[in-house]
Amino acid sequence: MTAGTDLDADLAPAAAPGDLAAVRRARAWLSRAAEPGSVAVWRFVERVGPVQAVRLLRAGAAPEAVQALVGVRAEQDASLADLHRAERCGARLVVPEDDEWPALALHALTVAVTSGGTDTAEMGDRTTAPVPPVALWVRGAGHLAEVVDRSVAVVGARACTTYGQHVAGDLAHRLGERGWTVVSGGAYGIDAAAHRGSLAAGAPTVAVLACGVDRVYPSGNGALLERIAQEGLVVSEWPPGSAPHRHRFLVRNRLIAALTRGTVVVEAAARSGAQATARRAHRLGRPVMVVPGPVTSAMSVGCHELLRDAGVGAVLVGSAAHVLQEVGRLGEDLAPPAEGAPDARDGLSDLAVRVLDACPVRRGVSPERLAAVAGCGVVEVMQVLPALELAGLVQWTDTGWRVAPRPKGTRR
Amino acid sequence: MTAGTDLDADLAPAAAPGDLAAVRRARAWLSRAAEPGSVAVWRFVERVGPVQAVRLLRAGAAPEAVQALVGVRAEQDASLADLHRAERCGARLVVPEDDEWPALALHALTVAVTSGGTDTAEMGDRTTAPVPPVALWVRGAGHLAEVVDRSVAVVGARACTTYGQHVAGDLAHRLGERGWTVVSGGAYGIDAAAHRGSLAAGAPTVAVLACGVDRVYPSGNGALLERIAQEGLVVSEWPPGSAPHRHRFLVRNRLIAALTRGTVVVEAAARSGAQATARRAHRLGRPVMVVPGPVTSAMSVGCHELLRDAGVGAVLVGSAAHVLQEVGRLGEDLAPPAEGAPDARDGLSDLAVRVLDACPVRRGVSPERLAAVAGCGVVEVMQVLPALELAGLVQWTDTGWRVAPRPKGTRR
Repeated sequence: MTAGTDLDADLAPAAAPGDLAAVRRARAWLSRAAEPGSVAVWRFVERVGPVQAVRLLRAGAAPEAVQALVGVRAEQDASLADLHRAERCGARLVVPEDDEWPALALHALTVAVTSGGTDTAEMGDRTTAPVPPVALWVRGAGHLAEVVDRSVAVVGARACTTYGQHVAGDLAHRLGERGWTVVSGGAYGIDAAAHRGSLAAGAPTVAVLACGVDRVYPSGNGALLERIAQEGLVVSEWPPGSAPHRHRFLVRNRLIAALTRGTVVVEAAARSGAQATARRAHRLGRPVMVVPGPVTSAMSVGCHELLRDAGVGAVLVGSAAHVLQEVGRLGEDLAPPAEGAPDARDGLSDLAVRVLDACPVRRGVSPERLAAVAGCGVVEVMQVLPALELAGLVQWTDTGWRVAPRPKGTRR
Repeated sequence: MTAGTDLDADLAPAAAPGDLAAVRRARAWLSRAAEPGSVAVWRFVERVGPVQAVRLLRAGAAPEAVQALVGVRAEQDASLADLHRAERCGARLVVPEDDEWPALALHALTVAVTSGGTDTAEMGDRTTAPVPPVALWVRGAGHLAEVVDRSVAVVGARACTTYGQHVAGDLAHRLGERGWTVVSGGAYGIDAAAHRGSLAAGAPTVAVLACGVDRVYPSGNGALLERIAQEGLVVSEWPPGSAPHRHRFLVRNRLIAALTRGTVVVEAAARSGAQATARRAHRLGRPVMVVPGPVTSAMSVGCHELLRDAGVGAVLVGSAAHVLQEVGRLGEDLAPPAEGAPDARDGLSDLAVRVLDACPVRRGVSPERLAAVAGCGVVEVMQVLPALELAGLVQWTDTGWRVAPRPKGTRR
């Protein structure tokens, strides 16, 4: 960073475009002056570069649509103060020009905003537009791109049930054990449970906030956010001190979806924000995974609606193994099939099953009797009896054939 | 029914093929002599007619494969006794030649067995073959075809949880209230809860058994089966007195799937019979519906596996409305969308949301201040404020604009 405090001087043509300090300060200014999530601003910055973009906006010479979005903020400059404030809380501004910028993960947003330019309805609304961040304020020691490389979003209701809390925590813990980073929103409920489960597994977890990384929001999660900053990362598009305005959560959600390989929704009420995050992940081509719950629980209604919505293509998941089946690399993270006790009858022919069913439990009977009960020939009965005896299913007694007593603890 | 007791005399060529009594006695004989579920027997009976089929089998002159399936039973005749026994318990034998034969419902089985003749692996196994019944023993006053016309199968685990019991009962009750018949297997657990829920709604319910309609199986459901016979129907392919051999349940399950417009699985353990019924319903082209549950519940593992199996195409359902969406007639039984409180912010432009978020809760501020916080021009602020005021979201005070106090019980 340059030592000067006059932004306009710092950004004067004398500063080479490759000057990372100038670029960082320019992007710091943009992150406050232009509310994140705007397609027009992002495109403008991409086109002219961050330093020139700031210079033009400051001079009121940017294209009208962009200038209007910045409005009166063009006259203000808190960029240096923001960078200092970030430094004081152990944060830094990560910019696309940095090595640790998660370019690969954010590529989906870049593609969406570059190719989807015709859909003005979606692009005009910053709460739904898929647009990459101009910069990211990051609190924590980890290398951002590396931490989110193998990551899954675990999101859900704030007013969750103990069931949801348990499932989110357990899921995050098991994902953490397998080397996966859990990304969530730092909120109460499912978010907090997911972060905690991940931390308990000694894994880095990432909280993507809708306010400044120095804000303690929600207030009850102060200790948790502190621990995340120590062992994982706290990330935000908004500069330090920014308040968590409601529409910022919707803008923030696209980032959670984009940074991760897939989104898991654990508990969501009808028409909830978690559903919106899931739909956004789907539009970005990321797998949407949903944990079901009791149909009698209001906190699972949103989950079930997602699973019923063929347009989302959500996959039902009940374990970390299921999640890794969707996002993991082939042959590395495969889910085992559901457990079920082995059954001695499996693989028996229809005839063998009928003969077995015809066998009495107590007093043995003749093959002729078995044939009459099973509705087949005596020869057929004689053919299948040896196999049934070998499988330990029938036994020969003084009076004839009967069902063999079952060993304890097995199913028949 | 003819008064005679000598089957061979009754079936002599003198008896016209159209003689319904002779046909009924022939099918009664077939239902005991040939274990239900056999494709070969059904095809033989279709080809030569029931009366001639019995005549040939009795004489040992049927095709070898069919004769072998009947085996020593060809020499026995309990048909008249079975018909009398049925009569004594208020049952009758319904045959395809009867008006109340559910031909439309069973059409899927007829198509499957007629077209699928090449798949010998499936056809050879009576536990999986889709084959129509030769006759149905029916206990209860209702008209079989009419009762099952608008019907849904509700099946699931015997060792169900109170959650499953509650959901099955409630679902069946609501389906009953809307004029739908619930078909199940008369077993403990989900089956019993479904039957009970349907009866509580004053709707006819159908128990399809894997044993004789006069058998009290399982023994603890005696009173329930009695009530079903009084208010609904108890149905079986097996003649009175037949024991519930295990493989008969699998054969029976195809009938539950075929008789109904769709199958709902409420709770199922991994690798359970309910899953098999669901897969069979899918193969018959019937919708498979699955009620999810907690992922921590072993009794929902089978349900979730079904929902994860893309090959089954199972639909998640949480209410009777969801079920009717799958099986109901269009415009008659449509599910309402999930409930969610209306939100005054819905439909607001991105700009309006930003201005609203910029409004303080207590002390009102000037439009200029709002513009600075929202990051837009003062003119834009002035443009959206009237709409926000009309919507009751902001209000003018001595000091300027602020958020309007929220009326109780609404979401903002």
